Amino acid sequence: MRTSYAVGVDVGGTRVAAGVVERKGRIIKEAKRLTPKTGPFAIVDAVIDLAEEVQAGIQPSEVAGIGIGLPAQIDFLRQSVEFCTNLPLAGVDVRALVMSRTRQEVTLDNDGNLAALGEHRYGVGRGARDFVMITLGTGVGGGMFVDGEPYRGSRGLAGEIGHMVVDLDGPPCPCGGVGHIEAFLGRPAIARSGREVALRPEGKAILDAADGQLDQITAEDVVQAALAGDEAALAIMHGAGDVLGRALVGLVNLLNPRLVAIGGGIGESAGFLIEQATAAIDAEALAGRRDVKVVQAELGNDAGVLGAAALAFDEHDSREGLHR
Amino acid sequence: MRTSYAVGVDVGGTRVAAGVVERKGRIIKEAKRLTPKTGPFAIVDAVIDLAEEVQAGIQPSEVAGIGIGLPAQIDFLRQSVEFCTNLPLAGVDVRALVMSRTRQEVTLDNDGNLAALGEHRYGVGRGARDFVMITLGTGVGGGMFVDGEPYRGSRGLAGEIGHMVVDLDGPPCPCGGVGHIEAFLGRPAIARSGREVALRPEGKAILDAADGQLDQITAEDVVQAALAGDEAALAIMHGAGDVLGRALVGLVNLLNPRLVAIGGGIGESAGFLIEQATAAIDAEALAGRRDVKVVQAELGNDAGVLGAAALAFDEHDSREGLHR
Repeated sequence: MRTSYAVGVDVGGTRVAAGVVERKGRIIKEAKRLTPKTGPFAIVDAVIDLAEEVQAGIQPSEVAGIGIGLPAQIDFLRQSVEFCTNLPLAGVDVRALVMSRTRQEVTLDNDGNLAALGEHRYGVGRGARDFVMITLGTGVGGGMFVDGEPYRGSRGLAGEIGHMVVDLDGPPCPCGGVGHIEAFLGRPAIARSGREVALRPEGKAILDAADGQLDQITAEDVVQAALAGDEAALAIMHGAGDVLGRALVGLVNLLNPRLVAIGGGIGESAGFLIEQATAAIDAEALAGRRDVKVVQAELGNDAGVLGAAALAFDEHDSREGLHR
Repeated sequence: MRTSYAVGVDVGGTRVAAGVVERKGRIIKEAKRLTPKTGPFAIVDAVIDLAEEVQAGIQPSEVAGIGIGLPAQIDFLRQSVEFCTNLPLAGVDVRALVMSRTRQEVTLDNDGNLAALGEHRYGVGRGARDFVMITLGTGVGGGMFVDGEPYRGSRGLAGEIGHMVVDLDGPPCPCGGVGHIEAFLGRPAIARSGREVALRPEGKAILDAADGQLDQITAEDVVQAALAGDEAALAIMHGAGDVLGRALVGLVNLLNPRLVAIGGGIGESAGFLIEQATAAIDAEALAGRRDVKVVQAELGNDAGVLGAAALAFDEHDSREGLHR
């Protein structure tokens, strides 16, 4: 049976968001809460509560299922959580726990993959056959489409764009590696640069953005000061843009994509990064640079919920033998 | 009509090799010559001469066509040579020139893509659905298979593994970029390290390998000295292996491949790099490290000719509506 709705849940390091989504991508009801810090089961409970809350009043037979995006490496075939830097979910059978309580079909995927799926189905990536999405947030992630289909790799673990090495002797990455893209572009890295600069006179605007609280300076404070024209903040973001651009040079040379979308909280507020990334590709990529367009993602915070719902629709349709 | 043979031509910076290949991958006749240094038309003439030489005595109707691998970025859809660092072929319509003289179907591709195709069809990559091949030679290149099919990107320019940035402030790359994998692992980079070390007493074994001629030291000399246990040469190759390993960490995190093959002249002689690369993946890659096996390519110098012939078979069969 062709269902009209799917539930998408986006679990982030800070908040959990859920929505009921129509097939055309309209979110008709949404709910959020802060991500519980009291362990894995509290997080799973929040997912279940939100999923039930947004579906209230809809016939269960009308709902394709629940898609859940996690900030984790997901073995897509086994639907297991393999690795999770920011939340205590590794090894937790999130799918079984949610299915047993909701009695609905549940499918897990990495949050970056789902943001890419959301943008590909409903956003800036519509119709793009060779598409890369990079999400700049607390973590740096993303997803890829090849010939119009999500590229998952041999077990569904592909797309960890943030964990490519761009600097042999670079800073430590939250994943334990060294010199990964996320070690330069994740929120903690940008905030750390902001705090370092804020110790000096030229960092006054950044410090002011955090109401004078040095240890409260966030990546967003740095972005806001840069958008307001502050030189020190612009220098930090210029450094971040350089890393993003150099990373994209490698991705363009490797993947020859047609479209690259930059999303995530930091990516969406710092639109100026796109100009710098495009300039880097023009200057250093091989012939593939002529094919590619770098654009800002357009779904904002909704990309994750929309992508998770798209996944639930796809899995439902494939179980039922339906085609998109 | 189902043909029995295809011609594969592998154009390298040093030599051009051609072979007539049976469908099962046996090379029944082969010919080589040094790559002409007198301009693009001399190279094209060498390709034509060799292709005709190896086909002598075979019925033209039995030959599927000619596949040609070039050390260049090839727009696969347009069959044009977009960018070529080591040979003056950019913008030269190699395909039309060879077709007009041989009156046979001709298909061009990047040499790394074809080495990958050769290994995938006839070598170590047989049956691997998610497969990455890295060729370490004068240039560093490679190719990728996704779900069992070559991954070409939006215009066929994908697979330039050697031109991913692994070091923000690294050495200059022959392509004009900075800190690319090739800038560390290409023959010129390894030879340069060898010459630097050979100026000092500890570099005696490397200097001896080049008969005492400092400016004649090649990457092969360094590899041979390392294989003989020379400490200074081992240190150089250990540095190269570190870069290869770190690059593979990024590729594994991005692509989650099942199999990675290391080929090319340097890759095949320096088997010890594989151990080091595997250790790097074990130490630093995310969960995808458990899926991947890094192995040595098995076709040696023939990978390019075999891959070019496989391409000619595939293009012929697709024109004729045949399936593999």
